[in-house]
Amino acid sequence: MLRYHLGWEDAAGSPDAHVGKRLRPALCLLTCEAVGGDTAKALPLAAAVELVHNFSLVHDDIQDGDRTRHDRDTVWAVWGLPQAINAGDALLSIASLSLAESLDAGLSADAAVRATGLLAERTLEMVEGQVMDIEFEEWQEVGLEEYVAMISRKTGALFDASLGLGALAGGASLAEVEALGRCGRALGIAFQVRDDMLGVWGAEERTGKPAASDIRRRKKSLPVVYALTRADAGGREELGRIYGRESVPGEDVDRVLALMDALGAQAYCADVAAEHKDAALRELERSGVTGGWADELRETAAFLLERDY
Amino acid sequence: MLRYHLGWEDAAGSPDAHVGKRLRPALCLLTCEAVGGDTAKALPLAAAVELVHNFSLVHDDIQDGDRTRHDRDTVWAVWGLPQAINAGDALLSIASLSLAESLDAGLSADAAVRATGLLAERTLEMVEGQVMDIEFEEWQEVGLEEYVAMISRKTGALFDASLGLGALAGGASLAEVEALGRCGRALGIAFQVRDDMLGVWGAEERTGKPAASDIRRRKKSLPVVYALTRADAGGREELGRIYGRESVPGEDVDRVLALMDALGAQAYCADVAAEHKDAALRELERSGVTGGWADELRETAAFLLERDY
Repeated sequence: MLRYHLGWEDAAGSPDAHVGKRLRPALCLLTCEAVGGDTAKALPLAAAVELVHNFSLVHDDIQDGDRTRHDRDTVWAVWGLPQAINAGDALLSIASLSLAESLDAGLSADAAVRATGLLAERTLEMVEGQVMDIEFEEWQEVGLEEYVAMISRKTGALFDASLGLGALAGGASLAEVEALGRCGRALGIAFQVRDDMLGVWGAEERTGKPAASDIRRRKKSLPVVYALTRADAGGREELGRIYGRESVPGEDVDRVLALMDALGAQAYCADVAAEHKDAALRELERSGVTGGWADELRETAAFLLERDY
Repeated sequence: MLRYHLGWEDAAGSPDAHVGKRLRPALCLLTCEAVGGDTAKALPLAAAVELVHNFSLVHDDIQDGDRTRHDRDTVWAVWGLPQAINAGDALLSIASLSLAESLDAGLSADAAVRATGLLAERTLEMVEGQVMDIEFEEWQEVGLEEYVAMISRKTGALFDASLGLGALAGGASLAEVEALGRCGRALGIAFQVRDDMLGVWGAEERTGKPAASDIRRRKKSLPVVYALTRADAGGREELGRIYGRESVPGEDVDRVLALMDALGAQAYCADVAAEHKDAALRELERSGVTGGWADELRETAAFLLERDY
């Protein structure tokens, strides 16, 4: 199940190659280099972050009832819900194992314990974000600040850990670890907002998902939270009616898109993403990282905001 | 959800007191003392083991579809399946947090990293045991050795960790940690076999569960695995028929009990439990622990085998 989920094998156990962007471990290793560290020491931590991310995907797919992810059946769709819970649990346990084995990569025991604490805190925060996300599905009105507080946990916390652990493995001071962690969190929020935009306005041929898929799935992402907050009584009622039913027919998708357009939802989301990207760059500056590595981190931030897939 | 599951609060958040036996942390602290250590250092590890145990209970209840545990609604029965997955995930994350914070209790960073590795390995093994247990539900024939291999992982591994972590926190040598871990594993197997016996032959007024509850729930525990292995073709067919249906009416419960009686299932299970208890005592002897602490561990072993609740 784990090899399948990680994209190394197909469901029958034959070799496959369906790996993800591996953004979080890349950021972890990049940050380690940026503070002048040896990436060999950061590798087990980067692996741990990626494993935690994948544990969360396996459990999210169960919780959301999603049967496919990136054109492949999800773990629970193949092996059933009980075994998929086990698959996620195993990935989280292996993340801990990777941290414990970081001594073999030359990390000091002190740093390994700090890494364990940091990742455990951020993982707990991520789970909290997931709790909030599921609660929001039942709520009539979710505020914009509440929504950002949710994605700060659900997505931001693990980006925070990615940069923080890279800095920690690279021997950075506590202040640098924290500043780079905050930079990562802001990046993570910007990344998620961009993801929310692609879920509504992304081009099918680039994202690989049907157009307006998050509207079809009635996902309470930033565009609809914004629309619910800003619409007049009639618009709110209409959105409530459309989101209150089991499925969203094509003409209702168009109505939601028109309502979002009228309220300027796309520009609003782009502003929120840019604002958090700027915050990330300010934290990067504060961290004292300069030169070519800072450029690389800035380029990554720009990519996260401009990507159309 | 976590305070409710741990028995500190009721579902509405009012104070409650429904705590379990806390057997694993007790064994952890006892083992720390037995090797001459300071239990203050073992406390965060004992807490971590108990949290891992509870994470597994929350997820098991979802996987088994059990709506009650010790006369209380299970977490998923109260908050729904998606949030209950989160509750288990959070408990596992807090276990890691407790390990990372063991430095505050005076544990060395080296010992904390070793503890992290040991608990992660045993947790992974426990999840593997759960994978096997769920697979066994679908199998027509599970061998007795396979069954013991499953409970060695599902129950034994965390008992192994309980004693092993106590020894580690107490400053024992690697050989002692391993011997006491093996002692714990054998105890865990004996404990689980006793549990299986109580699930079939336990007295309702002592266990708090309906008589023969594991037969009613069609649970593939040791007594039925034994019966399936030892019955003649007619008996196997009858068991297959009874276990193949959705529910087990009273007269079928009686037929299963009669078949088990005819095959001597209860005596067989008692033998298996005693065999693993003896193995545990041999490992205890090998570990070099003597005197009053060895007596306490022996008494605990005896309790695990004689308990009727």
